Amino acid sequence: MMRMFDLAAADPAIRFSPYCWRVKLALAHKGLTIESIPWRFTEGDKLPPGCRTVPALVDGETAIGDSLAIARYLERQYPDRPSLFGGAVGEAHAVLINSWADAVVGPALVPLLVFDVWVAVAPEDQEYFRRSREQRLGRSLEALHAERDGKVAGFRSALNPARITLRQQPWLGGSAPSYADFILAEPFMWARSISRFEVLAEDDPVGAWRERVLDLFGGLCRNAPRVEVG
Amino acid sequence: MMRMFDLAAADPAIRFSPYCWRVKLALAHKGLTIESIPWRFTEGDKLPPGCRTVPALVDGETAIGDSLAIARYLERQYPDRPSLFGGAVGEAHAVLINSWADAVVGPALVPLLVFDVWVAVAPEDQEYFRRSREQRLGRSLEALHAERDGKVAGFRSALNPARITLRQQPWLGGSAPSYADFILAEPFMWARSISRFEVLAEDDPVGAWRERVLDLFGGLCRNAPRVEVG
Repeated sequence: MMRMFDLAAADPAIRFSPYCWRVKLALAHKGLTIESIPWRFTEGDKLPPGCRTVPALVDGETAIGDSLAIARYLERQYPDRPSLFGGAVGEAHAVLINSWADAVVGPALVPLLVFDVWVAVAPEDQEYFRRSREQRLGRSLEALHAERDGKVAGFRSALNPARITLRQQPWLGGSAPSYADFILAEPFMWARSISRFEVLAEDDPVGAWRERVLDLFGGLCRNAPRVEVG
Repeated sequence: MMRMFDLAAADPAIRFSPYCWRVKLALAHKGLTIESIPWRFTEGDKLPPGCRTVPALVDGETAIGDSLAIARYLERQYPDRPSLFGGAVGEAHAVLINSWADAVVGPALVPLLVFDVWVAVAPEDQEYFRRSREQRLGRSLEALHAERDGKVAGFRSALNPARITLRQQPWLGGSAPSYADFILAEPFMWARSISRFEVLAEDDPVGAWRERVLDLFGGLCRNAPRVEVG
């Protein structure tokens, strides 16, 4: 059975890594089950050779350490299962969508939630997490937290391309979900796992799509454990 | 033969409408030839019923007035010609890429070029063009022109998702061009037709891709007439 290292909070049932969520949704889409191994930021030495962070998928002798690379691997290894990309062009287009989500959507969400992540991670991870994130973002976690109501508009604006698309079709994949939907599900599953902060306005068409994502695969996302406060 | 209304500058050989370029590349990809009708901003009454701007494609009794809708129409009408989307998922993903280009990339380019467009359009279009654009952008065309060196970084930054993608694959469509490439070719063909302002840094991987686009279809884009100055 394949194994996947999945980032865990202080409560090991809470799995909040956004990139791991992409892989978990891709596995569910393919109908594949794996052994999930809870992992903490400070356990870099437990990852397979060549992998420095999560997700890390281990399939026999093969270890893959990037969510999109894992999705492409699953598509090639399991071509008879439901497709993630619908062919070579759909896969190539998903690379651009993945790049957009990573370069634009994720970075707009980080400042809103990074304090909540710090609260929720295991005590032994907190010092590493604070230091690395404050260095990267150039502010204290508390300062970012205090500003988040003013920054939520920036995140919502970053979603405009998805918003326009979801006014025309129910899924980013068209009439049914594709890996593009799992790419964009990722920031929302990150937010949902680790925080109670609502990142969307009530009437946002992206919110209606998010509800559909939460119901996929028997409620895999809706039933995922969340923090109680934050 | 299909007919397409295509926006023309004062020099009718210069066709600078970005959305029309998407359609012209899609037609070339399908190996289709059409009758091109030069059109000016002030000739709204010459368009087919139901169309308010260009591109407007007329195929017998059918008139279609949106570049993506035209591309989808061509894909359905000519399924045996080279595919623009590579299937339903590739097409659905292209809707998101189209939305991204229209909501993010295009608007970042407009302030850099809008003065050059005003210089190049037909005299009878200049008053309408200035009034509508200054109202939309909230500044005079001259003020925008004076600021453009400082705003080019914003446009280059908007291209980050494409830049990341083109480090991994030669075309947005993967190993060969797809409609996604024609979507992103559009702002560059707009810039190239109407201006001599260089919008990319010299070593940008997007620039290397742009060179490949210019060579497609026997140099359709490279050989397109341009303004002499601007």
